[in-house]
Amino acid sequence: MSEYVAPLRDIRFVMQELADGAGIGALPGCEEATPDVVDAVLEEAARFAGEVLSPLNRIGDTQGARWHDRSVTTSPGFKEAYRQFVDNGWNGLGCDPQFGGQGLPHLVSTAVSEMWKAANHAFSLCPMLTQGAIEALMIAGSDAQKAAYLPKLVSGEWTGTMNLTEPSAGSDLAAVRTRAEPVGDGTFRVFGQKIFITYGEHDMADNIVHLVLARTPGAPEGVKGISLFVVPKFLLAADGSPAERNDVYCVSIEHKLGIHGSPTAVLAFGDHGGAIGTLVGEENRGLEYMFIMMNAARFNVGLEGLGDAERAYQRAVVYARERVQGTEVGVRGGPKVPILRHPDVRRMLMSMRARIEAMRAIAYVTAAAQDRAHREPDAAARSKAQAFAELMIPIVKGWSTENAVDIASLGVQVHGGMGFIEETGAAQHLRDARITTIYEGTTAIQANDLIGRKIAREQGATIRSLIAEMRGDVARLNGSLADLGARQAVAVDALERAVSWIVERFSGDPKGVHATAVPFLHLFGIVAGGWQLGRAAAIAQARSDAGDGDPFWPAKIATARFFAAHFLTQAPGLADVVAAGGTGLLEIADEAF
Amino acid sequence: MSEYVAPLRDIRFVMQELADGAGIGALPGCEEATPDVVDAVLEEAARFAGEVLSPLNRIGDTQGARWHDRSVTTSPGFKEAYRQFVDNGWNGLGCDPQFGGQGLPHLVSTAVSEMWKAANHAFSLCPMLTQGAIEALMIAGSDAQKAAYLPKLVSGEWTGTMNLTEPSAGSDLAAVRTRAEPVGDGTFRVFGQKIFITYGEHDMADNIVHLVLARTPGAPEGVKGISLFVVPKFLLAADGSPAERNDVYCVSIEHKLGIHGSPTAVLAFGDHGGAIGTLVGEENRGLEYMFIMMNAARFNVGLEGLGDAERAYQRAVVYARERVQGTEVGVRGGPKVPILRHPDVRRMLMSMRARIEAMRAIAYVTAAAQDRAHREPDAAARSKAQAFAELMIPIVKGWSTENAVDIASLGVQVHGGMGFIEETGAAQHLRDARITTIYEGTTAIQANDLIGRKIAREQGATIRSLIAEMRGDVARLNGSLADLGARQAVAVDALERAVSWIVERFSGDPKGVHATAVPFLHLFGIVAGGWQLGRAAAIAQARSDAGDGDPFWPAKIATARFFAAHFLTQAPGLADVVAAGGTGLLEIADEAF
Repeated sequence: MSEYVAPLRDIRFVMQELADGAGIGALPGCEEATPDVVDAVLEEAARFAGEVLSPLNRIGDTQGARWHDRSVTTSPGFKEAYRQFVDNGWNGLGCDPQFGGQGLPHLVSTAVSEMWKAANHAFSLCPMLTQGAIEALMIAGSDAQKAAYLPKLVSGEWTGTMNLTEPSAGSDLAAVRTRAEPVGDGTFRVFGQKIFITYGEHDMADNIVHLVLARTPGAPEGVKGISLFVVPKFLLAADGSPAERNDVYCVSIEHKLGIHGSPTAVLAFGDHGGAIGTLVGEENRGLEYMFIMMNAARFNVGLEGLGDAERAYQRAVVYARERVQGTEVGVRGGPKVPILRHPDVRRMLMSMRARIEAMRAIAYVTAAAQDRAHREPDAAARSKAQAFAELMIPIVKGWSTENAVDIASLGVQVHGGMGFIEETGAAQHLRDARITTIYEGTTAIQANDLIGRKIAREQGATIRSLIAEMRGDVARLNGSLADLGARQAVAVDALERAVSWIVERFSGDPKGVHATAVPFLHLFGIVAGGWQLGRAAAIAQARSDAGDGDPFWPAKIATARFFAAHFLTQAPGLADVVAAGGTGLLEIADEAF
Repeated sequence: MSEYVAPLRDIRFVMQELADGAGIGALPGCEEATPDVVDAVLEEAARFAGEVLSPLNRIGDTQGARWHDRSVTTSPGFKEAYRQFVDNGWNGLGCDPQFGGQGLPHLVSTAVSEMWKAANHAFSLCPMLTQGAIEALMIAGSDAQKAAYLPKLVSGEWTGTMNLTEPSAGSDLAAVRTRAEPVGDGTFRVFGQKIFITYGEHDMADNIVHLVLARTPGAPEGVKGISLFVVPKFLLAADGSPAERNDVYCVSIEHKLGIHGSPTAVLAFGDHGGAIGTLVGEENRGLEYMFIMMNAARFNVGLEGLGDAERAYQRAVVYARERVQGTEVGVRGGPKVPILRHPDVRRMLMSMRARIEAMRAIAYVTAAAQDRAHREPDAAARSKAQAFAELMIPIVKGWSTENAVDIASLGVQVHGGMGFIEETGAAQHLRDARITTIYEGTTAIQANDLIGRKIAREQGATIRSLIAEMRGDVARLNGSLADLGARQAVAVDALERAVSWIVERFSGDPKGVHATAVPFLHLFGIVAGGWQLGRAAAIAQARSDAGDGDPFWPAKIATARFFAAHFLTQAPGLADVVAAGGTGLLEIADEAF
């Protein structure tokens, strides 16, 4: 069983060179994040991920969470690992020091999160959901709510959940039917059933803080009548400690394709008189608060894609080095060689690696933008960073996860027949990754958000300024990298063509534009990934030219070249798909399917 | 649980209109295959597939084959269904009447096989392996072997297996180490371990006829020293009935990602003195015989891809019709609609459907060519058909299965969160389909076969004449189908460019050419699929123009248009990938992975 080894070299490179780690460290409020501290955090996280979380990954898969008597027992070792996670202070890494967090930049906590997700996707979901609850309360919680919940959530002693989905309200939250009735003392009684609640019940913490979407009596229909409530598993005693059991119970957990270590709960609220909750923020503004949490959750699911992909890649590389089979192409009667020497195995590994490095770069650059959006002293710089981050989140989520499924599938393929055998471990990554394109908004939802809210609504202003920035970087790819620059220039042109098509058509042909929103998301992802790998290649070439003999640099350049040859080449074709709009799919009759 | 409904309308259309079913029925030896007989066979097969095999599909998944005491108990119902399968005469549909088969054309048995595979992939593997054993014995068996085994294998009373793989000999059969020592009486004692033996042990038949690759003493090293043996589970008594247990035992079965209903055995030969077998054909020619079987097996695995994809599509369509969520794009405050109305759901369904129809057309046209290759009175016509069929088999196998994995994954995606829940059934198709790009030769092996044996070796003669044929068909796409013709013309040009590149570079840059063999396979598959859908669209347009109001015709045209817009558009980019050869992947150091 191969354990996860955090790719610290690339993580550091991307943080420092592509995401301007020094610049982020110099932002107001980031003074703690000195290079030494960041280095120590990364080293320690790599150790915890590799030594504690990674060995539990397969156990979580084979001995998943179990439901009994309205309780959930997590996989062997999870509880103890979570205790260590909390004791070591990992939970509050990026949280506000006011509530016990360490206040490190999002860029740093992103790198650390990648490691948790790669080491153990199922485990990592618990702290991720807690993070969502923390954010909701930070944004909209009352002082009393903050005081009651945040210190425990930041430390990780208690965990959090997001309760959105109901049997008839999945992607369409307008259909939420859970009710919250005012008791008269400032609390509400919540009634309803929520499904797909990640870590909705478990045995790893003393309390679980549910953030729940529900409707108050007389609330407007649709999304404008949804409010957000905090409903703890145990009501708090006067001293703030968990006391009486609240009327929210886990009636079952799902039997899923993957992430077996993560209990996915069906929660019944109010079957015994009502679950007591308090309103978060203002009535009927629940969706708005939830969306803020959701943006963070979407970013994090993108990191899950990155993590699953990295793990699949590492496992495939180990196998490709060890497995000796066949002779080298073009060599008759030569010695048997590791399959790493076979051109198609190399192609598969490079196809995994190149996209992983692109996904990492996009995610970290987006994380850095989020830091700038919060901390830049200049308002214009803040809003520019905010716009960039919002534009990129559908790519971090949508593009990275779509790639993750394909990368994990390639990981199986590299193993040949052994990949199909569960004990090998490669198949788990495919099964685990398969959820990432679905939860926290499917790829289509990301793509619709991208073309609608992020592009068409502002006539493409942010993406056009990004395209200009890309062209500036492409212009720097010359000399021995001119081939890369040429491929990127063609791809950026294709992106611009597609953006113009969307902006022009969005209001007149909404169905046609939505019909190719996902192909557009792929196109943008490819071009953004190529842009980042091109920036990396330019840096690598400069170092090599300056006499730095580190083999990291030529590998970076080769990776960028591979990505350009295999992915940037697809950009013009994808722009053609985008421009095809509803061709073939809107004119066909519903009955013909 | 939605059961499989054979898509008889499209199956008949493809058989009759694209694969020239009438012409095949007119070939010598196909006299039995009258339109009425073929129709009745298809109807009856559809019924058996939908009513008997399909309901066992999920049972096979959840209650897979179990090993105990060197025996295997198949999933509940499998044994009874297999008995019905045999009793109804399905096993010998395409087999030689001399041994009890019905001698129907391969085109017909292909359509029927698609139904078995779509209804129950795991079940269908048993008769498929029997088919392989029948073919090996037909080609190379002695009269005594034929008389002893063929009637029972053709009826299906006994089943067959292919024993190639060993722990160190997967794709590289040169490494086979199983030994066969002559006893002196014409028999051999076989010693060794074989892995990944599909239906290597089970309880559905009275005997299992293992076809085994092994080396005789003093045989040359490598693939030229491999012989083929027939080793029955039970040795035959003088009257031909199964008698003494032979020394071949199932020591375990694999725990796999999918096809749980199909036992994948580890077989130990000769642990108790030697498994008795007889040589098939001549010594040291085993690989050659095996390859003939393998071509048939590869074709059949392509049909598995088609079957899994069709099943995934059907399930997704049912869900998309039933699931009501959200309002129609561009309609504010309108009624909730089935998700089938959402543009991206339609895009996913059309992406599944269009490729499925292309895969079916390619498979059936190839099957018809195999019939012509055997039965055309004219030798030139036979060899032309043979060359075409050999060229297309890597596409039927490689392209269809790669698509099947993606299509089954889209089937999960259409279901949203429900797709990740095992009870929904969508995930099983992804897990089942995932093996198809691996067994009977991975996609890379198909691609290498395609560029090497099928293209470069003959300087591209067959594919170039196919390209000329495609251009003839493209020229007929005019009038209201001119847009389709234009997209196809561009795609065919891209294919020709890639073929020229391969032919020119194959001997001088073998690693570079092999590095993009799989992208070439995708390119060829897309262009061939577009060609067939274009032919279908031309027929559909002619029918519509002639006043035929069947909604099948406009749906065909829409499907062809969708395929052209979403897949043919990718051809130029793929040709660029092919021409990139080893870029980025050959220059990177092994240590850098």
